[in-house]
Amino acid sequence: MITERLGGLAFGGDYNPEQWDEQVWKEDDELMRQAGVNLATVGVFSWALLEPEEGRYDFAWLDAHLDRLHANGVHVDLATPTASPPPWFTLAHPDAMPVTPDGTRLVHGSRDTYCISAPAYRAAARRIAAALAERYGDHPALALWHVHNEYVTLCWCDHTAAAFRVWLRAKYGSLDALNDSWGTAFWSQRYGSWEQILPPRATQWHRNPGLTVDFSRFFSDEVIAAYAEQRDAIRAHSDRPVTTNMMLPGYQNIDLWALGREVDLVAIDFYPSAPGLDAAAEAAFTADRARSFAGGRPWLLMEQGTSTVYDRGRTLAKEPGEIMRHSLGHIARGSEGALFFQWRQSKAGAEQWHSAMVPHAGPDSRVFAEVTATGEAVSRLAELAGSTVTAHVAVLHDSDAWWALNSDGLPSSDLDYHAALRDAHRALWDAGVVADFAHPETELSRYRFVVAPALYLLSDAGAENLRRYVADGGTLLVQHFSGVVDERLHARLGGYPAAPLREALGIRVTEYRPLRHDERITLSDGSHGTVWSEILQTRGAETVVAYTHGSLAGSAALTRYGYGRGEGWYLSTRFDDADYAALIARLLDSAGVGPVLPGLPPGVEAVAREGSDGRRWHVVLNHRPESVSLPETAHDLITGGPVGELPPGGCAVLRGGTP
Amino acid sequence: MITERLGGLAFGGDYNPEQWDEQVWKEDDELMRQAGVNLATVGVFSWALLEPEEGRYDFAWLDAHLDRLHANGVHVDLATPTASPPPWFTLAHPDAMPVTPDGTRLVHGSRDTYCISAPAYRAAARRIAAALAERYGDHPALALWHVHNEYVTLCWCDHTAAAFRVWLRAKYGSLDALNDSWGTAFWSQRYGSWEQILPPRATQWHRNPGLTVDFSRFFSDEVIAAYAEQRDAIRAHSDRPVTTNMMLPGYQNIDLWALGREVDLVAIDFYPSAPGLDAAAEAAFTADRARSFAGGRPWLLMEQGTSTVYDRGRTLAKEPGEIMRHSLGHIARGSEGALFFQWRQSKAGAEQWHSAMVPHAGPDSRVFAEVTATGEAVSRLAELAGSTVTAHVAVLHDSDAWWALNSDGLPSSDLDYHAALRDAHRALWDAGVVADFAHPETELSRYRFVVAPALYLLSDAGAENLRRYVADGGTLLVQHFSGVVDERLHARLGGYPAAPLREALGIRVTEYRPLRHDERITLSDGSHGTVWSEILQTRGAETVVAYTHGSLAGSAALTRYGYGRGEGWYLSTRFDDADYAALIARLLDSAGVGPVLPGLPPGVEAVAREGSDGRRWHVVLNHRPESVSLPETAHDLITGGPVGELPPGGCAVLRGGTP
Amino acid sequence: MITERLGGLAFGGDYNPEQWDEQVWKEDDELMRQAGVNLATVGVFSWALLEPEEGRYDFAWLDAHLDRLHANGVHVDLATPTASPPPWFTLAHPDAMPVTPDGTRLVHGSRDTYCISAPAYRAAARRIAAALAERYGDHPALALWHVHNEYVTLCWCDHTAAAFRVWLRAKYGSLDALNDSWGTAFWSQRYGSWEQILPPRATQWHRNPGLTVDFSRFFSDEVIAAYAEQRDAIRAHSDRPVTTNMMLPGYQNIDLWALGREVDLVAIDFYPSAPGLDAAAEAAFTADRARSFAGGRPWLLMEQGTSTVYDRGRTLAKEPGEIMRHSLGHIARGSEGALFFQWRQSKAGAEQWHSAMVPHAGPDSRVFAEVTATGEAVSRLAELAGSTVTAHVAVLHDSDAWWALNSDGLPSSDLDYHAALRDAHRALWDAGVVADFAHPETELSRYRFVVAPALYLLSDAGAENLRRYVADGGTLLVQHFSGVVDERLHARLGGYPAAPLREALGIRVTEYRPLRHDERITLSDGSHGTVWSEILQTRGAETVVAYTHGSLAGSAALTRYGYGRGEGWYLSTRFDDADYAALIARLLDSAGVGPVLPGLPPGVEAVAREGSDGRRWHVVLNHRPESVSLPETAHDLITGGPVGELPPGGCAVLRGGTP
Repeated sequence: MITERLGGLAFGGDYNPEQWDEQVWKEDDELMRQAGVNLATVGVFSWALLEPEEGRYDFAWLDAHLDRLHANGVHVDLATPTASPPPWFTLAHPDAMPVTPDGTRLVHGSRDTYCISAPAYRAAARRIAAALAERYGDHPALALWHVHNEYVTLCWCDHTAAAFRVWLRAKYGSLDALNDSWGTAFWSQRYGSWEQILPPRATQWHRNPGLTVDFSRFFSDEVIAAYAEQRDAIRAHSDRPVTTNMMLPGYQNIDLWALGREVDLVAIDFYPSAPGLDAAAEAAFTADRARSFAGGRPWLLMEQGTSTVYDRGRTLAKEPGEIMRHSLGHIARGSEGALFFQWRQSKAGAEQWHSAMVPHAGPDSRVFAEVTATGEAVSRLAELAGSTVTAHVAVLHDSDAWWALNSDGLPSSDLDYHAALRDAHRALWDAGVVADFAHPETELSRYRFVVAPALYLLSDAGAENLRRYVADGGTLLVQHFSGVVDERLHARLGGYPAAPLREALGIRVTEYRPLRHDERITLSDGSHGTVWSEILQTRGAETVVAYTHGSLAGSAALTRYGYGRGEGWYLSTRFDDADYAALIARLLDSAGVGPVLPGLPPGVEAVAREGSDGRRWHVVLNHRPESVSLPETAHDLITGGPVGELPPGGCAVLRGGTP
Repeated sequence: MITERLGGLAFGGDYNPEQWDEQVWKEDDELMRQAGVNLATVGVFSWALLEPEEGRYDFAWLDAHLDRLHANGVHVDLATPTASPPPWFTLAHPDAMPVTPDGTRLVHGSRDTYCISAPAYRAAARRIAAALAERYGDHPALALWHVHNEYVTLCWCDHTAAAFRVWLRAKYGSLDALNDSWGTAFWSQRYGSWEQILPPRATQWHRNPGLTVDFSRFFSDEVIAAYAEQRDAIRAHSDRPVTTNMMLPGYQNIDLWALGREVDLVAIDFYPSAPGLDAAAEAAFTADRARSFAGGRPWLLMEQGTSTVYDRGRTLAKEPGEIMRHSLGHIARGSEGALFFQWRQSKAGAEQWHSAMVPHAGPDSRVFAEVTATGEAVSRLAELAGSTVTAHVAVLHDSDAWWALNSDGLPSSDLDYHAALRDAHRALWDAGVVADFAHPETELSRYRFVVAPALYLLSDAGAENLRRYVADGGTLLVQHFSGVVDERLHARLGGYPAAPLREALGIRVTEYRPLRHDERITLSDGSHGTVWSEILQTRGAETVVAYTHGSLAGSAALTRYGYGRGEGWYLSTRFDDADYAALIARLLDSAGVGPVLPGLPPGVEAVAREGSDGRRWHVVLNHRPESVSLPETAHDLITGGPVGELPPGGCAVLRGGTP
Repeated sequence: MITERLGGLAFGGDYNPEQWDEQVWKEDDELMRQAGVNLATVGVFSWALLEPEEGRYDFAWLDAHLDRLHANGVHVDLATPTASPPPWFTLAHPDAMPVTPDGTRLVHGSRDTYCISAPAYRAAARRIAAALAERYGDHPALALWHVHNEYVTLCWCDHTAAAFRVWLRAKYGSLDALNDSWGTAFWSQRYGSWEQILPPRATQWHRNPGLTVDFSRFFSDEVIAAYAEQRDAIRAHSDRPVTTNMMLPGYQNIDLWALGREVDLVAIDFYPSAPGLDAAAEAAFTADRARSFAGGRPWLLMEQGTSTVYDRGRTLAKEPGEIMRHSLGHIARGSEGALFFQWRQSKAGAEQWHSAMVPHAGPDSRVFAEVTATGEAVSRLAELAGSTVTAHVAVLHDSDAWWALNSDGLPSSDLDYHAALRDAHRALWDAGVVADFAHPETELSRYRFVVAPALYLLSDAGAENLRRYVADGGTLLVQHFSGVVDERLHARLGGYPAAPLREALGIRVTEYRPLRHDERITLSDGSHGTVWSEILQTRGAETVVAYTHGSLAGSAALTRYGYGRGEGWYLSTRFDDADYAALIARLLDSAGVGPVLPGLPPGVEAVAREGSDGRRWHVVLNHRPESVSLPETAHDLITGGPVGELPPGGCAVLRGGTP
């Protein structure tokens, strides 16, 4: 484990000494010691310096920095620089530049300009990864390998087309099987040869959903293969763990369950998309996903900003205390440390306004003071290393469902997979409950309550798995427009959702009735719905809440069904936030799931980490602007003394507590 | 007539058995009998199955389906599949794929990917049409030929450029004539050779309106020529009527007056763009246009959804009763039946969420129950076959005016031809009056009242035609920014509108004064205007309503002029809906035009169909949520008994009534 | 001076006789006399007629028009037609058509379709300019040369790339210097050869700000070089002054300080972007910039519309009186006349809805009546020729700052250089004060008060210049996010803004804290801020207004610092308009700057022109809908008599007055 090598939790960030001079390096050494940095990510965007011409390497500068860091007690997370090929690469391999769906070939001048399926790119990436591993594989500073950075570049070029066809042949075996799966009898799309299949390039109108979802699956597999090639090239020379950083909040191009299985340590980047309490909730959302993708094993917050909150075209600053709370918020949920992008704010280049641990203003600044305080706190949490988090509730998540809900031609533009997932998690977070995410086909019996939001695509196996979960005693809430198509994107016939799920819910949906843009309906219990409504027949289920609008008046909006030893609930509209929170609270109560620490007011977050030896810690974060009393006084690792109250915005890591 | 072959009005829809298996076909046979289906549109998107490789045909599967349908008493509307070339076509003829104005060449993967001017496409289309006609031209099931589907694909490629130049040479004869017409002395656009002329591709700023409108005219002629080629290839082998389905509500790329003259039976598709009463009004709008394009002859509603209402990015469901009311609403206005897209909702493909007669949920569903009820009702209306509809009011409509109002560089982005046309029709519909649409150059004397909304382009002949209409006793309402440019897009000089029209209106407009985005002005009588205002001098006309805002205070907004034996009215702003309705009501009254059935409350629609033998029926549709009493009790064809009251949402087809 | 040749101020407009016939030309002659036209701009878009095939010229038609104009007493501003190459040029030189960043090559069909860096285009432009100069260089009608028209076309093609590299080599000398300046160590952007450098074409994400700002600088230099080539070709044959018309309000692609130095007479086009008083203020804003770019020398309003106000997609009409007030508004601030685009409204072509001196309706129209009245007034102002305008206040303006504020990756999408510049000027205009614009590096000691809005980029020299300005007694107001990066786009380290400026302001900014989209904060004195906030430390400065929101409560929003003999003020948020106006009024008062004519109510504009002989005139414009009394009765050049009161919307040019 990385924490053993570091002797505690990780603290640090991306470090780009090549942007600075010797005087600054000296100050860096001093300030890193002040801030308690023990891990620096080096080389993420250094390809042009490491390989200034194709095949000619220059490692001397990097040797010096690694030695310097080592001498200063800082370990290194060494990156392969493949996210940003140098300008010479474009000229040598123009066919390896990415192409948009409408045929525009992008060029260098930013970063991430490559086609992941281009042979020349893949070969160049393997070469530089191998060269780095050969040189630094057993460097004493080396703690971790960081392959690439935030894999995101999509491409629709001819290399991509060729690779897509190879993938399709392997998946389908025959064109008949592919044609049947995609339903190409519709719109005269039947393929007569593999060569006729193209990526989803610009076309006249709606694209075939089978094609587009398979293209998403292909792309995900292609990225994971590219990652695995570099990982394997590294492993030939080095025994240190290998990872790549997942860009969590918005990106959706990779099946992170699959990627999680390929990395030695799940690593994520966190940049909130709204300020304040929303950011805190989003940190928990991100962290819970990271832990889930890691299969419950420890994982690592690889990047966060000291002061970067994206907010619809603006980059807001973080408020005082948020550096600490976001860092501990991730550690609370299983991260083995808290790293930042980047150590020192760039003075030039396209991200000169990205926040950093040492801002433009220098160490005499609020930001550096809070960084130092956070580093100090993290250094006191070494005993948490390797401990884990247990959740009794799960939110179902499947990339297939996400990709499918991006299909052309769906009935409403208001369907938003990511928002539905986040909203479900938020309601649980507001209730003080820690949630896992789970794939619909995995064993769910360890959870008392499972929520399925926006699970438009649900495989046959998934549907049966959910049925069995309820039959065996689980409480399941399925939300509108879920279980609608199978893994081939074929609609469920005879009524929605998929038959085994219908059985467990005691209902049969016969019609989807999207609401208008500005439509908000009132339901029988005074709650409100937007976006969506459905006509459903109860088949045993009880109508808990009914519609009252128009021709749906009197028909069921929310149902409950006792099935086997469990309960299946179905919500056929999008509840207003408060109504949804009330429903989740009711179901948690019914499932016997309470908050981690009972009695805390809203906006105070508590999570338990548990050691394999039975030890237990509670991380408590006060996101409120007032002081808050803790249920009982306990020993706080951060202050090293007893604490019974948290100041406004304050944090504590309490040793012990009721399991 | 198609109704003779069918033995009554048509009922049915698009049928795509190639998407299903034998078990479903058997259920289809049974359900079609239940629903009263007598006409199925087959083969619309079957090119890839009918011609799996270039030049190799496979008709066996289609033989079987036609025989099966015939055995089941269902006639066939057989389509040529040319709207969607198969994937092999792209690879064989990449030059026949459409190109956007910015040079992006689209590919297959959706539908409608072809360049209508590409020789390879046109030849392939003729071949498959001829092959189908040769094989099925006298098939006993065959009732109608359905060429292509909703011609819509525009293209800006070199084939298009070449065809455009041929069209321009034929139109202008000489470059001098073209240069003069387009005003190429402006902006150094003078063409020195035909080769210099390009389609309106991506350029730096505003495009020449003469060029863009001629390109629209060219494209329309090109589509009609492509249709006519297929029609003629079919006629060589078959004596059944030939048509193509016009996509009415939004599309605007074809001069439907001209296309109407080329088809044996005008056929249209109807998909409303707003729910509820707006959809009912839009059905009437669409149907009245269809009847007008058909020259008053019977026509056919070829496609509608059982539950498809487009609403700004969402696809809403229809309310209970709308399947019946929309179907009868079209039949009321001259349709010889009511067909749907499609029979059975696709389980896969890009339109799997398009509604159908048999939904995913199957026959045990609200939708199928209403389909069956509607089929039953339509089957009782056989005696209406061949009867027609008479209107005393016309709304002027000209594709040239539409295209011209899409020119670059017009004074306001709020000018919307389609909306102006629809608003005029809606005011008449609200008044219970049935309206024709009429081309500005056709004989208008049969109408007591004519409305000219948004007639920006008005030819010399059209202007003189309108003058004469008023002189001969007609009541004419001309709305703002009409009669402004001639057929060459040249502005009328010396004052707007065109001189003969000015004469009939007794005014002279000297300035257009667009209003601001959010500006709403109050007029002298308390009415309100938006979008537009004008400075006009009365030249004999009476000022009925005056402006009161700013420097226009006191000048005329609405004028009336007694000219010859008629009256010319001019409205120089966009009235609010209620004010416009009041004006239309006033003019109807003044022109002596009353509702079809007096005494009905708003939202109850009545239309008379008249047989050539003097027989007469009234179709009455109650769009209200309350019961409504009819003026007198009469025999209802649907119930087969006397009816004096319609329930909420109910319909009747009354035999007889005052002519 | 042009006024000597004309015998007074210029009045007239663009004249395109090639669009009309002989009968119209005769009417033109008559109407020009009526309107007092003495200058006509001819040939702006005549390339296709002057050179109908490459290398074949046809001047006969132009000879005739110049002679006719001359005979009618109208002088000529003769244009080179290079803004709009003819269609033959596209076919002969397809490589000279402009290419967008995503690779779309535009074609003719509009205007301005050329790549300014294409050798074929530059050669063709020089040839036609030389040919015109040779033929008309000493034509008796000729008063001015008008090179090109509103240089605006950007291009990203390979010619552009080649020219960009030449420019970069000249600027940087070595790749090392370029790499250092652009900070290419970031994101692996280091260039290993000049050939690797591309224009900022479509790429994956944020572009390098050094590259994009240098591309803007290159483009500006390239345009000025293209202009200078034509100018020099003309000067070889003609001694008349040469200019090109700057498109002022929105365009930003040229460093107008530099272009101002290359023209013999600064000429501008003015099209307001909002109606009413905003348009009047925008006229003053535009005119003050023109005078500043001209270095205080007389300049010329080359184009305005008689009735063209752009307003978010609409083209509004001007109100009665605005033709006169906008014309005199420009003359008041130093224009040597008032010209329009165009004389006669085109009946065809893409700008047929652009207003003109003779509208479609003809001379019997409001517009022509106002044009004639304006021409009459201008003809009475001959004695103003050559007089100048003195300002005691300056607003700093630098194209570098504008371009830099368009960089990718800045913290807020609400940062708008043009709006900040305009708002600063508007506050001064509302206070009755005439302002110059000044480059940050020029001598500022002649100004009592200097405002620096949105000066994101500020060079080392500029920062030192501002420090010295304050030290020497000036009052300086620096606004938020100014002085942030140097001329290489490198962020200022150790605290913002640049060190010399920090010193003069007595502050140190440590953090920028953008506000949310809809956030409006209340400050300690009740004023309000939007868009932006900052954390700053006072280093001697007094906190005049403090923040009250969140964690910024109590820290300084507005500061004042006595430095040397002057005062440095810093405003770290965007004040609401009224609060900003109050601040500007307070600083004007403190700096001892009063309105040009004290005692006038808001909306009444007064400007003084001063002759080199000490003579003085006051132009007074009443933009209010009520009469206004003047401070004292004086002789009005327009009426030729004494005037003591202006009617609603009225104007006067008063001889004399207190200096």
